[in-house]
Amino acid sequence: MSKIKTWSKLALLGLTTATLVACGGSEKAEETAKVETKAEVINWKMVTTWPKNFPGLGTGAENLAKSINEMSNGRINIKVYAAGELVPALEVFDAVSRGTAQMGHGAAYYWKGKAPAAQFFTAVPFGFTAQEINSWIHHGGGLALWEEIYAPFNLIPMAAGNTGVQMGGWFNKEINSLEDFQGLKMRIPGLGGEVLKKVGGIPVNLPGGEIFTSLQTGAIDATEFVGPYNDLAFGLYKAAKYYYYPGWHEPGSTMEAIFNKEAFEALPKDLQLIVRAAARQANAEMLDEFTALNNSALQTLVNDHNVSLKPFPEDVLSALKKASAETLEEVAAADPMSQKVYDSFKDFGSKVRAWHEVSERAYINAREID
Amino acid sequence: MSKIKTWSKLALLGLTTATLVACGGSEKAEETAKVETKAEVINWKMVTTWPKNFPGLGTGAENLAKSINEMSNGRINIKVYAAGELVPALEVFDAVSRGTAQMGHGAAYYWKGKAPAAQFFTAVPFGFTAQEINSWIHHGGGLALWEEIYAPFNLIPMAAGNTGVQMGGWFNKEINSLEDFQGLKMRIPGLGGEVLKKVGGIPVNLPGGEIFTSLQTGAIDATEFVGPYNDLAFGLYKAAKYYYYPGWHEPGSTMEAIFNKEAFEALPKDLQLIVRAAARQANAEMLDEFTALNNSALQTLVNDHNVSLKPFPEDVLSALKKASAETLEEVAAADPMSQKVYDSFKDFGSKVRAWHEVSERAYINAREID
Repeated sequence: MSKIKTWSKLALLGLTTATLVACGGSEKAEETAKVETKAEVINWKMVTTWPKNFPGLGTGAENLAKSINEMSNGRINIKVYAAGELVPALEVFDAVSRGTAQMGHGAAYYWKGKAPAAQFFTAVPFGFTAQEINSWIHHGGGLALWEEIYAPFNLIPMAAGNTGVQMGGWFNKEINSLEDFQGLKMRIPGLGGEVLKKVGGIPVNLPGGEIFTSLQTGAIDATEFVGPYNDLAFGLYKAAKYYYYPGWHEPGSTMEAIFNKEAFEALPKDLQLIVRAAARQANAEMLDEFTALNNSALQTLVNDHNVSLKPFPEDVLSALKKASAETLEEVAAADPMSQKVYDSFKDFGSKVRAWHEVSERAYINAREID
Repeated sequence: MSKIKTWSKLALLGLTTATLVACGGSEKAEETAKVETKAEVINWKMVTTWPKNFPGLGTGAENLAKSINEMSNGRINIKVYAAGELVPALEVFDAVSRGTAQMGHGAAYYWKGKAPAAQFFTAVPFGFTAQEINSWIHHGGGLALWEEIYAPFNLIPMAAGNTGVQMGGWFNKEINSLEDFQGLKMRIPGLGGEVLKKVGGIPVNLPGGEIFTSLQTGAIDATEFVGPYNDLAFGLYKAAKYYYYPGWHEPGSTMEAIFNKEAFEALPKDLQLIVRAAARQANAEMLDEFTALNNSALQTLVNDHNVSLKPFPEDVLSALKKASAETLEEVAAADPMSQKVYDSFKDFGSKVRAWHEVSERAYINAREID
């Protein structure tokens, strides 16, 4: 923030430069300077890709704004806009890029048309769990690559939410073999959609608000969304009977906060750190919330709504895994930045999976031994 | 913080009440009040249970202090003390309780002599992974119980670090059956030690600095510590050949920050929230760090130091699991607060495990299908 802005703000408060200096005394210049800048309120807009009061994802964005407001003691004041209130859901990236809003909340794979490499920062089929992607982003070089992808767009990204392993989706028929995906029209965005295409399906991209009706009218045959907590709220059980797991296509989806570069860099250092800590807090908080709330929603779906909960057959998962690897190679080969990100993803992935063979995986299997 | 303290601090800066009010004008009382409180520096001491510059755990505590200092723009200034610098490692709890230090960093199971129920907030054998314990603490009622346990000690706890699934430990001989634990002297603290005792072993509690020598001289036959990243730094491979997994006794150990109640409650609301966000950030950051760094350390141990990496046999894990369940029942039965915490742990545990059967576990097994 410029000195001039600060002074003019203080003038509006009835405090003039001359008066303040006179009060503090010239030997206290540094203390006085601190006092001056505290009074300015930085008004920000946050645009989001989420419907109003959307559980978990949308409320997570609201809480992020609230915690920045409160930790900054009102020095940053953020007004949150749901999808369509200021700009449509899928214009969040552009709106923050050009400074219409100073920040946004959504998911990086929505921007694959602008930057294909962004997809790796939401979810990769057969890729990272929540713990793994957090580690890649914050200790495996991921964040620097993400920043590199967004820099030409005048944006700074941060991880700001995670759903954990999602569900495999809602289907009107059983999936017994890979042939059951032939011609299947399924709402599935991002890299997962590309994989579905490779095995003969027809990926459709629909915003959340249109999924239920499309499934019920037969415009689509299947859909994935998030997990029981969100899917129950959406009423998807009324339009499809079979609920498959695991979510091979989104094993730990990251939500993002994006910031207009000038707006973020104009903040004093302490406020920048407050914003970063608030994003990190939101990132952890959302995963904790989904982890705690998914089970009771799943029980309600199965016990009260007669949903048929089914695992994908092993040979289907095996085929989807091969198709995923091929898809990722193709996506990487088509774009140098995607290749760079994919190389980092693969390298970190092989290491973290080796570690999780003797830690997470060995443990959660051991825990279920009789 | 009291009004009086603030005024006296400001007086030291050469700014008097009268001058400030005269400057701001009475119609700006609220703005003036904000300006006043900014100038005070709150000096805190943080005592820790960690040796100086201890990787991961100790540096995590240092980073927590740094982020509070910086986010508060110097309004809170925290000086960090390693174990023994101000008080011995195992007196951290008492020192913060009586206000010798305003905060501490360590692990709750160190205080089982004072509050047995505290053990549930570090690690429970065959209990929660990192993701699960975070969810229990922040969305499953865990934090309220932890606060209840610490309230009589004038302390406020927060989760402030997690190691992820630990390793099962270092042994001088192979573990082929439960009989191999008979008479085995092993350094293993907390509930894990109680379980070892139940299967015929002899648990020993040693501070980190004494483990290596004890193992090398044969004073103990085995030890667990944390995981490859920490264990490599400690040189444990020089004193034992067999490195077992998984860490059934510590599947996602939480580190804690504790605060003297009066010191924390005297903070203005914005600083309280900054402290909470910094702890949450430290909690996520440590897990990200361990997840990223354990694998290369493990590769070094196996490839450069000829460590023999081995899984516990299934029947041994099965027996340890039964012994763990019995131990937890006994610990709970001996203390009403432990019973209350154990009930919450069991209830949340059965739900989160049911969810992870179709999410984390189903996924990470599916990912390894050929």
